[in-house]
Amino acid sequence: MKKIILTGDRPTGKLHVGHYVGSLKRRVELQNSGEYDDVFIMIADAQALTDNADNPEKVRQNIIEVALDYLSCGLDPEKCTMFIQSQVPELTELSFYYMNLVTVSRLQRNPTVKSEIQMRNFEASIPVGFFTYPISQASDITAFKATTVPVGEDQLPMIEQTKEIVHKFNAVYGETLVEPQVLLPDNKACLRLPGIDGKAKMSKSLNNCIYLSDSAEDVRKKVMSMFTDPNHLKVEDPGQVEGNPVFTYLDAFCQDGHFEKYLPDYKNLDELKAHYTRGGLGDVKVKKFLNNVLQDELEPIRQRRRQFEQDIPGVYRILEEGSKKAESVAAVTLAEVKRAMKINYFEDRELIEEQAQKYREGK
Amino acid sequence: MKKIILTGDRPTGKLHVGHYVGSLKRRVELQNSGEYDDVFIMIADAQALTDNADNPEKVRQNIIEVALDYLSCGLDPEKCTMFIQSQVPELTELSFYYMNLVTVSRLQRNPTVKSEIQMRNFEASIPVGFFTYPISQASDITAFKATTVPVGEDQLPMIEQTKEIVHKFNAVYGETLVEPQVLLPDNKACLRLPGIDGKAKMSKSLNNCIYLSDSAEDVRKKVMSMFTDPNHLKVEDPGQVEGNPVFTYLDAFCQDGHFEKYLPDYKNLDELKAHYTRGGLGDVKVKKFLNNVLQDELEPIRQRRRQFEQDIPGVYRILEEGSKKAESVAAVTLAEVKRAMKINYFEDRELIEEQAQKYREGK
Repeated sequence: MKKIILTGDRPTGKLHVGHYVGSLKRRVELQNSGEYDDVFIMIADAQALTDNADNPEKVRQNIIEVALDYLSCGLDPEKCTMFIQSQVPELTELSFYYMNLVTVSRLQRNPTVKSEIQMRNFEASIPVGFFTYPISQASDITAFKATTVPVGEDQLPMIEQTKEIVHKFNAVYGETLVEPQVLLPDNKACLRLPGIDGKAKMSKSLNNCIYLSDSAEDVRKKVMSMFTDPNHLKVEDPGQVEGNPVFTYLDAFCQDGHFEKYLPDYKNLDELKAHYTRGGLGDVKVKKFLNNVLQDELEPIRQRRRQFEQDIPGVYRILEEGSKKAESVAAVTLAEVKRAMKINYFEDRELIEEQAQKYREGK
Repeated sequence: MKKIILTGDRPTGKLHVGHYVGSLKRRVELQNSGEYDDVFIMIADAQALTDNADNPEKVRQNIIEVALDYLSCGLDPEKCTMFIQSQVPELTELSFYYMNLVTVSRLQRNPTVKSEIQMRNFEASIPVGFFTYPISQASDITAFKATTVPVGEDQLPMIEQTKEIVHKFNAVYGETLVEPQVLLPDNKACLRLPGIDGKAKMSKSLNNCIYLSDSAEDVRKKVMSMFTDPNHLKVEDPGQVEGNPVFTYLDAFCQDGHFEKYLPDYKNLDELKAHYTRGGLGDVKVKKFLNNVLQDELEPIRQRRRQFEQDIPGVYRILEEGSKKAESVAAVTLAEVKRAMKINYFEDRELIEEQAQKYREGK
């Protein structure tokens, strides 16, 4: 069986370093690993519209931002298929039929949906499209016969829902859909980066993100303003590294080589942490080091971005090509689904002949 | 503005005389009236699957039955567009986007859905597809820009939901969708025929229906076995016409001409009812009359059915042609919808140029 990845993002804003360590960096590695027959990267505009129906402009404007972020991180249209969800109409048709295989109460029990509903203050006014998006996600995954879905732990209930739909469909209509497997992040620090203000989540509205598209100077300013240990007032005070975002960022980004290059007094992050913990190491020094580490990682990304920014129509062409390819793959799956459901009447010679005979014989 | 009708049936069984007086007869009149630019008649297989997901064979086998019933009643592919819902994938795409404009609690308040959920004993295990079918219906109606939807009173909340979606869509994305108007039955007796056992609803499982495809002899037997006034034991007893299905059927079917032909002792139904009410008129006599009236109406239908039954592949070709035409109309609406939502990125030169310029000017 082919090994196929499906993954993607909602285009509701530019991507930040949290996205990078949480998924983008790994995605590029997976793409380059040569282990996968195909890697589908979906810009999930249709899903973004489920809770942005009255602000389609936000979604529309951010598609190019996400595409630029993808390309600048090293996702390569020669090695993966980047596409826009809404340009693959087969996905909505699959959703429509999968909706018959899931109950309302099953959706209500989905913990991810529950917590996202809470997060968005929807309460009683949840849009139906948002409520049913786990089903839409099952379409996205199964349409491309994805065997591997790289997700964070918070997304496990979504993949569980997809598996249930696959089982139900195959049980009712015969073996047709491929069951996906989850690929969890292998680095604990990468699971989720906090905001630069120490808040658990980076969010545009909190203005606490470092974006992949931020200039070197913006990144430096943001790093230097980062929240650290609030009790670490003087250099000689002992400091805490747990829950200290500067160290969480270092956990995610720095490698031993960075010390040799920028902070040769220390061999590795453990030594730096030990010094900070016992006291005598100032925040500014650590932040400057983090800035150097981040710039090392972000500079090549920024450079690639500047190139792609000079050819926006070209980026749209990449997405258009990708969407065409994605559609052709999804169309094959949809045809299989309809054949399994036996709703391909006009090409079903057997059905027509059987019924003609019934009437010839007077029922 | 064009005048366009959309109507249809779920293919879950053969159609019966209740369907005939409730909608089919009128549909043929509307088709022949010359007042409408187009009449779309949909065999709603996708909707039928929402509560028959595990029995697709039932739906699949009944498509031809419904099509034969349509053709034998006088629906004419030269004058109307008969199509199969699942063969117009644009409908699922519209549903997908309309789902963002309706809240879960709004669907829960829909009285038609409420009562149908009760009828089906779904309780907590309502399939999502069934729960959301008012949204799917809005797609069916708006896809064809239907101005006129002939429905019974019990379906009014469904059309209300469609109107709400039209208003919401047009308010958010700009004037795009056409608001449909309801066309209620003009004859009260036609609203709903009871079963031959006197039960309020004809249903296959109760075996109390007279089908359009029943033989003359089957119709006669069924009429002669009909439930009447249970207190009308002897001919001389006064009888009740209210709630007496034989008279309800006569209300729906008989015309003054039938008396001249089959029961010349009476001028019209009022005289017959008066005699029955005061006593002295036996059930058998009334039933024989009803049988004659029904056979008069059903015989031409049966004859046409026998002709079409001899060419089942031809009937499928009619549905295939109709589905192609329906799809081409729905595709135009869908393109308008996507343009209004501005999710037609690749053809949106303005978007691409605007963003290219933004980056040329350094944001």
